Amino acid sequence: MKQILITISLFSLCILSSNAQNWKILFDGSDLAQWEKRGGNAIYEVQEGAIVGTAVPNTPNTFLCTKEKFSDFILELEVLLPNDLNSGVQFRSNVHEKGYVFGYQCEIDPSKRRFTAGIYDESRRGWLYPLSRNPKAQDAFEMAKWNSIRIECLGNEMRTYINGQMASNLIDDETAKGFLGLQVHSIGDKSQEGFKVMWKNIRILSENVKQYRWPTDPDVPQISYLKNQLTDWEKAHGWQLLWDGQTSDGWRAATHEAFPDNAWKMDNGELTVLGMQQKSSGDIITEERFSNFELELEFKVPKKGNSGIKYFVNPDLNEGRGSTIGCEFQILDDRNHPDALLGKKGNRTVGSLYDLISADNLTTPGRGKQFKGIDRWNKARIVVKDGNVEHWLNNEKTVTYNRFSQIFQSLINYSKFENNDHFGQWPEGAILLQDHGDMVSFRSIKIRRL
Amino acid sequence: MKQILITISLFSLCILSSNAQNWKILFDGSDLAQWEKRGGNAIYEVQEGAIVGTAVPNTPNTFLCTKEKFSDFILELEVLLPNDLNSGVQFRSNVHEKGYVFGYQCEIDPSKRRFTAGIYDESRRGWLYPLSRNPKAQDAFEMAKWNSIRIECLGNEMRTYINGQMASNLIDDETAKGFLGLQVHSIGDKSQEGFKVMWKNIRILSENVKQYRWPTDPDVPQISYLKNQLTDWEKAHGWQLLWDGQTSDGWRAATHEAFPDNAWKMDNGELTVLGMQQKSSGDIITEERFSNFELELEFKVPKKGNSGIKYFVNPDLNEGRGSTIGCEFQILDDRNHPDALLGKKGNRTVGSLYDLISADNLTTPGRGKQFKGIDRWNKARIVVKDGNVEHWLNNEKTVTYNRFSQIFQSLINYSKFENNDHFGQWPEGAILLQDHGDMVSFRSIKIRRL
Repeated sequence: MKQILITISLFSLCILSSNAQNWKILFDGSDLAQWEKRGGNAIYEVQEGAIVGTAVPNTPNTFLCTKEKFSDFILELEVLLPNDLNSGVQFRSNVHEKGYVFGYQCEIDPSKRRFTAGIYDESRRGWLYPLSRNPKAQDAFEMAKWNSIRIECLGNEMRTYINGQMASNLIDDETAKGFLGLQVHSIGDKSQEGFKVMWKNIRILSENVKQYRWPTDPDVPQISYLKNQLTDWEKAHGWQLLWDGQTSDGWRAATHEAFPDNAWKMDNGELTVLGMQQKSSGDIITEERFSNFELELEFKVPKKGNSGIKYFVNPDLNEGRGSTIGCEFQILDDRNHPDALLGKKGNRTVGSLYDLISADNLTTPGRGKQFKGIDRWNKARIVVKDGNVEHWLNNEKTVTYNRFSQIFQSLINYSKFENNDHFGQWPEGAILLQDHGDMVSFRSIKIRRL
Repeated sequence: MKQILITISLFSLCILSSNAQNWKILFDGSDLAQWEKRGGNAIYEVQEGAIVGTAVPNTPNTFLCTKEKFSDFILELEVLLPNDLNSGVQFRSNVHEKGYVFGYQCEIDPSKRRFTAGIYDESRRGWLYPLSRNPKAQDAFEMAKWNSIRIECLGNEMRTYINGQMASNLIDDETAKGFLGLQVHSIGDKSQEGFKVMWKNIRILSENVKQYRWPTDPDVPQISYLKNQLTDWEKAHGWQLLWDGQTSDGWRAATHEAFPDNAWKMDNGELTVLGMQQKSSGDIITEERFSNFELELEFKVPKKGNSGIKYFVNPDLNEGRGSTIGCEFQILDDRNHPDALLGKKGNRTVGSLYDLISADNLTTPGRGKQFKGIDRWNKARIVVKDGNVEHWLNNEKTVTYNRFSQIFQSLINYSKFENNDHFGQWPEGAILLQDHGDMVSFRSIKIRRL
């Protein structure tokens, strides 16, 4: 019934619209006149109505790019991967002054990770929409068969579909316009020489885009990179900003009621610990208390930097000196800060539950943590529901535990919190941003109650 | 349909049988001539067709007992508890030479534990069939209402039903015959003075018992205390004896292929560590390997005794001296062995996952571990399915964890096993009985694959 209603609605829209769908053919099965090769020296040929890309050794990522640039559009194409060679479709992409292609890429991913139609920011910020956030789409792509890909860009909204399944729902305002590009990935291994990727039926619609976008899948979460700003989707899903981007409203010192103005600065939409190594910590906490919640923020840590996001903090029990205790999503420069080697087997590294559980990649075992590096923005995400807690670093899960479980208590008993009664057990608590004496910055701090 | 078939079958049995159900009335609503008071001085009176027991201070458990003794029988009665006073119905019970009543008791339990119709061995072995093994029956009893209780005894099979729900399915051969008794519990607290228990409609059938027993509920597990012997139910459910009660068949030393005859003795159906404090451990392991399984055994630990049951043991990786490593159900005299205070907050006490997770009572929080004491037989039970592991001590759950979980690895990293790669991770392993230098005994060692 729902299906029928949707069909009728879509049909009505088509009738009502005075504009037909003016698809532009970008590849007609023979002619590559609209395309040019960039970035490397992989081979692109036309064979049996398809563009066939072939990997060659000793060359960087290569892209067959449209000469034309597009801003708002709907792109459709088909892709076939006969071999295990990573690929992708660039969109809104450009050439860096150093000659390489950068920008949004609709991933084509034959690996165990299965991130096809996730969105990767080529040669810039890395993964923006990994399919670890959308497991339903991870099974949609099929090897050695023609797969249909659809990319919809409208303003800061970017959506992808793989074989009809919505994969990514990305909000980002970094680049509004650029060319398209078909990737042949560089190969590190001679055994991949000659590996191929094939594309066909490439067409684009760049008028009346809004009208022809597909419905969104309510199971697919939106991921936004807007600064200190909520999207309509986020508002509709109960998100609230915890920091307004400018003032200390809603925040106070962990150990007293005022905001520690001397320990933090707020400019350029960033909330930054001054890192003055004062004797009394400049930790700040939210005035609100949270029980079941989903928290997301961006953090930037400098070389040798250390900070953290604590939750289930009970400031009433920690008055006085020192850092206020709570469960902590650790923020650290693992490579250069000595704390990374302390604790037990990595349980003080970035993304870990500090001193308790070492961060790992739980959504794609073996892939390792996805830290974007120091002096870059990283996303932290903490989800708490009925005692079950998850840490996510850049949208890949690093930690999971149940805070009320017997084994969690057993673990606490071994940690530095062994004498903190009720550690992590309070029904609700504040969110805390830690002043560990380093200039760590935060932004886009948002939360929703679950 | 099944219901109808059962009904027809039961009906047919009645027709075919030449014997009618000859119920004997034990209480007709007025006369207590068949009863006598034993053990204490609580008050029993007849009021409005019911026997009313009333608690009085400073007296031990009191029982209104039948003068007649019964062996095989079906007993039916109704009970009403207006107050929070523990009670029970003794059966196959007797008087100790010291004057107190002992034997099987069908529990009547108004506490949070909700063990009504579980079977307790009064003044002898304590809980035999706690309802922690049958959560379905825990909700059947209702306070301040008349509840029907049915007890069926035939040979070593004892079954109870509460308001039509099967509660206990016990196999035990300790006592075949004795009187019935209605308990008024002793009170420690003056505030319970005058608390009441009421019984009515008490009748017994002691002929053709086998024919009139009710069907068993397949969800209700059988618990057997037979020595080194499987019941029909256990055989039908895939149980096998791991020890034949007499020989070392199926067992070998953990560190070499022979059985360490000099470290163990076998007599009276008990497998006992000699406890000679030899330099090389006399640990023994099963020749079979197990992956998903349910293991049950009985152990008896002397004063200051220490031993353990290890599982997921890989003897190939532990050749040489010392004790072979594995996940360990700890066996210890907590009160007198110094190891109880080592480790972290009790994680080396009896029923614990040694050095990792402290035993607690997980089925009834706050009730504490149910250790029956030194020099007494205790049941250990270990259930492993798809990585989820449970320890049970005397049929109450003490430990639960998932051996493949991130938090379990984090816990190992803090423990003495931090450098044992793959601790608890092997797909299968042997079962090990530990020689820790103390005379600990084992019997009724049985297992089934899940």
